[in-house]
Amino acid sequence: MHAETSTGAHQPLEGFADLVHSKGALLIVDAVTSLGGHELKVDEWGIDAIYSGTQKCLSCPPGLAPVSFGDRALAIMDARKTKVQSWYLDVSMLRKYYTGGGGGRVYHHTAPINMTYALHEALNIVLEEGLEARIARHEKMHLRLRAGLEAMGISYIPKRSLHSLNCISIPTGADDAGTRKRLLEEYGIEIGSGLGVMAGKAWRIGLMGHGSTVRNVDLVLTALREVLK
Amino acid sequence: MHAETSTGAHQPLEGFADLVHSKGALLIVDAVTSLGGHELKVDEWGIDAIYSGTQKCLSCPPGLAPVSFGDRALAIMDARKTKVQSWYLDVSMLRKYYTGGGGGRVYHHTAPINMTYALHEALNIVLEEGLEARIARHEKMHLRLRAGLEAMGISYIPKRSLHSLNCISIPTGADDAGTRKRLLEEYGIEIGSGLGVMAGKAWRIGLMGHGSTVRNVDLVLTALREVLK
Repeated sequence: MHAETSTGAHQPLEGFADLVHSKGALLIVDAVTSLGGHELKVDEWGIDAIYSGTQKCLSCPPGLAPVSFGDRALAIMDARKTKVQSWYLDVSMLRKYYTGGGGGRVYHHTAPINMTYALHEALNIVLEEGLEARIARHEKMHLRLRAGLEAMGISYIPKRSLHSLNCISIPTGADDAGTRKRLLEEYGIEIGSGLGVMAGKAWRIGLMGHGSTVRNVDLVLTALREVLK
Repeated sequence: MHAETSTGAHQPLEGFADLVHSKGALLIVDAVTSLGGHELKVDEWGIDAIYSGTQKCLSCPPGLAPVSFGDRALAIMDARKTKVQSWYLDVSMLRKYYTGGGGGRVYHHTAPINMTYALHEALNIVLEEGLEARIARHEKMHLRLRAGLEAMGISYIPKRSLHSLNCISIPTGADDAGTRKRLLEEYGIEIGSGLGVMAGKAWRIGLMGHGSTVRNVDLVLTALREVLK
């Protein structure tokens, strides 16, 4: 988990691949909430397979999952003896569709072309800002929000927080659902509730892609301060 | 196969369910190229599971597969003892997501909301025309194209043709790829090639959704006549 969406934890991945590969295993990474908002060096970090979503830090509509596979993963795929149970998610067929396989591209499915155009444009927007500048913006906005929250006595739950998702402890005495409802109805701000064992204990504030701005950070801080009063 | 997209064959389904059910089996139907263009009585015909696509006769962007399950299929699903291998395509989880399961809706995935809005609008357009009127239009346009093609000595391959997809024999002496290339480059008309054993022997002319019009039928007839000269 490079980016743990339900807890807001950020897991640095340097060094993991060496450990994993020394045991003969492959490293698969969940980067749904980090791609486009956090540094992510797929090859340098030795990642064998990685997947993300379009709807988080890329600010593209939801509906596609960008994926990438390295040479180790492809070698395992090529050596596979058993049939893949799913036609839809058979990556060996998707590979022939997208990259061809000696004999050229092999039809697999009708492409969701509008989503593909949307992703293309979203990536253009990322490049217009510059990927490094975008990652730096996510960090800066996270630090701005963090400083404001900590000044209000609110603490972060994960030891190392994602810049795109801020998972904080609900202040003592605050009404979980009531606060979120007022933020939504009075300010048009939706923050996430805690999940599983963190239900009723955590709030999750997303600062992803085009939403990660000074305006939004300052608005959520002001709104939260008002509602908590 | 209610609608066989690669051969243009239309399979009437009345009576099939009785036979299938008498053997203790379920009837699953492919209606990718018929939904919105052909009569399709899911409950009346005793269909247990059916799937389609948004990009054919519904004239919606590609990216979603409308599906429906009847009581028999749901009972089998509920009695299942083995784990579904795919999370993504686990219909029991999708069911809890879309319809709730006693305890309300259970989160499964981030919905492709733009596609959902697109489908909603496409269905509105279907209802504005009227489903029966739309189906009648598909039949009328098919008959118009058929009359024109047969007047040119061109014959249909399937005994019973889809109205949405016209699979015809390539006339003797005609250049398969060259004809399709000229239709595309000179007239902006793309017709499909034959697939598998029908490669080089068949052409497939789609008349689906908003494309099934007098203008398009007459244009393709004129263009084909000119190119074949």
